[in-house]
Amino acid sequence: MNLPRTLAVARGDEPADLLLRNARLVNVLSGEIHPADVAVAGPLIAGVGEGYAARREIDLGGRYLCPGFLDAHVHIESSMVPPAEFARAVVPRGVTTVVTDPHEIANVLGLEGIRFMLGDAAGSPLDVRVNAPSCVPATHLETSGARLEAADLVALLSEPKVLGLAEVMNFPGVIQGDPEVLSKLCAFHGRVVDGHCPGLSGHRLSAYAAAGISSDHECVTVEEAREKLRMGLAIFLREASNARNLRALLPLATPANERRLCLCTDDRHPIDLLGEGSIDHLVRIAIAEGIDPVTAIRMATLNTAEHYRLRDRGAIAPGRRADLVVFSDLSAPRAEEVFVSGELLAREGGMVHDRRHRRYDHLPRTVHLDPERLDFSIRASGAQARVIGVIPDQLLTHHLTREVPVCDGWAQADPERDLLKMAVIERHHGTGNIGLGFVEGVGLTKGAIASTVAHDHHNLVVIGADDVSMRTAARAVAAAGGGLAVAVGERELSVLALPIAGLMSDWQIEWVRDKLQRLLDDAHRLGARLRDPFMAMSFLALEVIPALKLTDKGLVDVERFEVVGLFV
Amino acid sequence: MNLPRTLAVARGDEPADLLLRNARLVNVLSGEIHPADVAVAGPLIAGVGEGYAARREIDLGGRYLCPGFLDAHVHIESSMVPPAEFARAVVPRGVTTVVTDPHEIANVLGLEGIRFMLGDAAGSPLDVRVNAPSCVPATHLETSGARLEAADLVALLSEPKVLGLAEVMNFPGVIQGDPEVLSKLCAFHGRVVDGHCPGLSGHRLSAYAAAGISSDHECVTVEEAREKLRMGLAIFLREASNARNLRALLPLATPANERRLCLCTDDRHPIDLLGEGSIDHLVRIAIAEGIDPVTAIRMATLNTAEHYRLRDRGAIAPGRRADLVVFSDLSAPRAEEVFVSGELLAREGGMVHDRRHRRYDHLPRTVHLDPERLDFSIRASGAQARVIGVIPDQLLTHHLTREVPVCDGWAQADPERDLLKMAVIERHHGTGNIGLGFVEGVGLTKGAIASTVAHDHHNLVVIGADDVSMRTAARAVAAAGGGLAVAVGERELSVLALPIAGLMSDWQIEWVRDKLQRLLDDAHRLGARLRDPFMAMSFLALEVIPALKLTDKGLVDVERFEVVGLFV
Repeated sequence: MNLPRTLAVARGDEPADLLLRNARLVNVLSGEIHPADVAVAGPLIAGVGEGYAARREIDLGGRYLCPGFLDAHVHIESSMVPPAEFARAVVPRGVTTVVTDPHEIANVLGLEGIRFMLGDAAGSPLDVRVNAPSCVPATHLETSGARLEAADLVALLSEPKVLGLAEVMNFPGVIQGDPEVLSKLCAFHGRVVDGHCPGLSGHRLSAYAAAGISSDHECVTVEEAREKLRMGLAIFLREASNARNLRALLPLATPANERRLCLCTDDRHPIDLLGEGSIDHLVRIAIAEGIDPVTAIRMATLNTAEHYRLRDRGAIAPGRRADLVVFSDLSAPRAEEVFVSGELLAREGGMVHDRRHRRYDHLPRTVHLDPERLDFSIRASGAQARVIGVIPDQLLTHHLTREVPVCDGWAQADPERDLLKMAVIERHHGTGNIGLGFVEGVGLTKGAIASTVAHDHHNLVVIGADDVSMRTAARAVAAAGGGLAVAVGERELSVLALPIAGLMSDWQIEWVRDKLQRLLDDAHRLGARLRDPFMAMSFLALEVIPALKLTDKGLVDVERFEVVGLFV
Repeated sequence: MNLPRTLAVARGDEPADLLLRNARLVNVLSGEIHPADVAVAGPLIAGVGEGYAARREIDLGGRYLCPGFLDAHVHIESSMVPPAEFARAVVPRGVTTVVTDPHEIANVLGLEGIRFMLGDAAGSPLDVRVNAPSCVPATHLETSGARLEAADLVALLSEPKVLGLAEVMNFPGVIQGDPEVLSKLCAFHGRVVDGHCPGLSGHRLSAYAAAGISSDHECVTVEEAREKLRMGLAIFLREASNARNLRALLPLATPANERRLCLCTDDRHPIDLLGEGSIDHLVRIAIAEGIDPVTAIRMATLNTAEHYRLRDRGAIAPGRRADLVVFSDLSAPRAEEVFVSGELLAREGGMVHDRRHRRYDHLPRTVHLDPERLDFSIRASGAQARVIGVIPDQLLTHHLTREVPVCDGWAQADPERDLLKMAVIERHHGTGNIGLGFVEGVGLTKGAIASTVAHDHHNLVVIGADDVSMRTAARAVAAAGGGLAVAVGERELSVLALPIAGLMSDWQIEWVRDKLQRLLDDAHRLGARLRDPFMAMSFLALEVIPALKLTDKGLVDVERFEVVGLFV
C-alpha cells in the first residue's frame, strides 16, 4: 500500500488505476443505495464520488456495486477440494473472503494439515482466514489422526492469516470449566472465539457466553436464536448442504438486531456449491424471503467483517479493499463481475484467467491399513442387537434394538429388512481397530459404500449388504489413498479418489462434482434411499451427536457417552 | 477475573455477588427491552435470566437497566477539574467510560501532562481511556508549552489506557500527505484514529477517509454528516458547552445507519456538566427529539464501545463488565443507581462514598512570565487597525478594519464603541512574547478579564477597556498559577485559580462551578454581552479557525495563514 499515492488519487491529483463509473452503490455503512463512481488505487478504494479520471474506466451503466461477500464460517474440506480450487468456485460468486475452520484436515494431519490449507490458500485470490480448530479430536471415544492441545494451537497465533479459535463444540467442557478447554480459551484471549452450541439455553447458555464465546451457527429456531442474541452471541445464519437453517431463522431479523447477524455456509458439497452457489445463494434466499436487499448484503459483508475485526473490508469506502461485486438484479443478486483488491478476477460466473491445474506431488499418505486383513465378521453373542436408526436429513439417530439373523454363530446383514452392516476402520495409525455394527434406514439392497470422509475422525467407514461388497468398497478407497467408493460383490462401480488427507481431491471441482454425482447415482441404483447416503454415513460415526453412533472403538451410546456392547 | 467462578455463578452453582432482580433490561444487542434478572460475579455480568441466587439482591421492581454510558470524545480539561474529580460529576450521571483527548494539558506540559491525566484517572471509578493528541502545537503561528512529534506519541502506545490517536485536526496535512502527519498516522496504524474535519467534502473527504481516519465530530448539518457517513466515518453527535450540534444532526439517524452514530460531549464546562449533565443529557435530548429510546441508549453505549473496540462493555450480557445504570423514566433516563464493575458507586445523582479531596502537592509551575514587565501599550503606526470581530456562540470571527483612537502616538481602546484591547502573553517559557490587538463585540464598558485557558496553546489572554485593568487581571491570574480573573482598575473582583497547568482547579467541581459563575456575573456587570466571555475569549487565540485571531506571535490572518500587521 502506498498511502501518498492513494491520497493523490483520492484528491484527484493523479489518475486512478480503475474507475467504476455510474454505479448504484450498495452502501452498507449508510444503509442506502446511491449513485457513485468508485476510484481504485492499487488494491484499495481511494475515492467515492464524481469527477475522477483513471487509466482504465468501466461504465457500469447503473448496475449495482456491492462489497465482496464474506463467508463467516466454512469448512473448505466439505467442498472436497483444497482452498485454491475452492476459490475457483466461490470467487466468481462474489465471495472474496472466507473464515475457515480446517477442522477436518486437522483431525487427520494436525498442524501439518492446517499449514497445508494456509499454504494452498496463499496463492489464491480468495482471502482465506483461518480459525484454529478447537476440538481435535472430538472425544476420547474415537481414534483420530492427530490431537491438538492448547500448546499446539498457540503455534498458530503468529500465522498472519489466523484470526481466532474456531467453533468451540465442546460446550459442556466450557460450561463446566474443564481446564483443557479453558486453557484453549485463554490461549486465544483477545482473539475472536466462535461458538457451536445447538439447543443451549438458560444458565448454561449464560456460562457459555460468559466464557467469551462470541457466536453460534447452530440455531434451528427463532426462539433459540433470539435467546442467544440477547446473551451477546452473534448469530450466523447457516445454509449448508446438510443443515439448511436460513429460511427458518430469517424471521428473527429486525432493523434493530440485524447488525448481529451474519451469513455462513458451514459445509457445502461441490454439487451445491457449483449448482446453487455460496454466500450469494444465501443472499438471494434472504431477499426472496423478504429481507431488505441492503440488509441481506450487509449480513454477508459488513456484519461479518466487523465480527472478525477485518476493518479493511466489508464496505465500499475510501481506504478499504477494492473487493467489489457488480450485479444487475437487486431482487436476486448474481455476480457479473468480481474485483478482488482492485483486479477484475471473475466475470459471468467464471474466473477471467483460470489457473493452471496445480499438482500436489508430496502429499503424505493418510490411509494406513492392511487391505488384506479387513474382516467384517461379527460373532453373535445374542439375538438382539443395538442398531443405529438413520433419520433422513438429520445428524441425530435413533437407538434401536433389532433381532439380527445369525448363521453359524455369525451375525449377518439383512437387506430385505433394511438392516445393513457398518464398519469403522481406523486408518491413521494402522492400529487395526475396527468398530462393527448395524444400521437401519440406508436402503441398500445390495453392494456397499465406503468413505474416508467421516466426521470428525475421518476413519474409513463402510456400510453394506454383504461382507464381500464391503471389502471391495473399502479396498477401493484405500487404494485411492482415501475417497469415496461404491461396489457390488468384487466389482468397483465408482471411486472418487480424495488423496489429500482422504478428504480432498487433487482435481478440479467440476470433475469432482461429476464424479460425486456418479457415485450418488450408483448408490441410488443399489437401493440407497437417502438423498446423499455418503453424507449421512459421514455423520453416523460422529459420537458427539445422539443417540447411537459407531467409531473405530465400537458402538457409542451418546447419552451415556460410553462404548456399549453390540448385543443386548 | 476468575473465569471458573464466573462460570459457576453463571451455571447457578454458586451464589452471585449481586443480583439485580426484576429489571426491564435495555438490550442494545437485540434492540429490545425485556424483563430479566442480572447476576454479577466480581466485576462481570455472569448470568442474565431467571432463577439466580446471590449474597446481595436488589429488587428493581420493573425499573429500567441499561449499560453504563460511554462518552466518545471529551476534553476533560474543559470541566476545569482533573479526571478523578470529573468522575465525581459524570459517574452519578451514568457515564462509566470516557475516551478523552488530553490535548489541552498536552499543549502546556506535553507527555508529562498526559501522564498526569493517566495517573489522576487511575484512582477513579470512571474508566478513562486516552487518545493521544495528534496536533500539539496546533500550528507554527503560536508558542505552546510543548511539542509532540510522532516519536513522542509512540511512547504512549504501551500505556494500557491509551486507545489510539485523537482527532486529527490538521486535515489539510492529512489530505496533502504531509510527512509529519503521515508519520503520526503510521505510528498508530492498527489503532483507532479519530477525525476532526469541519465542512470537509468531496475528493478531499475521500482522501481524509482513505488515510484511515475513522470518525468525525464536527458536523453541523445533516447533509455534511450524511456524506461523511457514506464515506465510512463514524459520526459523533456532539453537544458541547460551546458547540451544540445534536438536535441539528438527529434527523440523520435511521434504523439502517444508527450503528455508525455515537454521542460525545467534546467540551463541557462545570456549569453545564453539573446543571444539564453529560452523555445522559444527550440521551434525553435524542429521545425528546423522537429517537427510539433503545436506539438513543445504543448510541451512548454499544456503538461507542464497538468504535473503540472495547468489547468488554457497551451491553448487558454475560462476560461483559457490570457497568449498569438504573432509571425509571424511559422518556428521559436519569440515573438513579450506577454500578461500575459490579459495585454500586452512585445513587440519586451523587457518589455513594464520596472520596476525600485529593491534594495536588507537586504540580509543576506553568505560568512563567514577569508580572512587572507586562506592557499593553500599542504604538500606532496608522489610523486604521485590523480588529477581531466576535460572532456570538461561534468560533469563527470577522476580520474587521476600524479606526482606532490614538493618544500621543499610542493606540487606545474605546469601550464606548465596544473596541477593546486584547493581549496574548506567552506564559510557558518566559520568552516575553506578547501579541497585541483589538477586539469588537465583547462589550466590557470597563475593567478587564484574563485567562490561561486559551485554545490550543493556553497562553495568558487578556481583554480589557484599559491597560491598568488588564494588568491587574493578568497579574491575578499569574499569581494564582493560572486561572481566570476579572478586574477593574487595580482591584481584583474575582479569581478562579487553575494551578493544574493553568487549566484545572485542585478543588471540587461544585466549588469551581460556583466560582466560575461569580466570574461570569462580574464580567456581565462590567458590561460583557456574551453568554460566556471567557469561553469566547479562549477561542479568539485559536489561529486554526477563521478569520482573524491573535496569538503571542501577533495577529493571524487565518485565510492567508500568516502573521499580519495590526495597522493597515
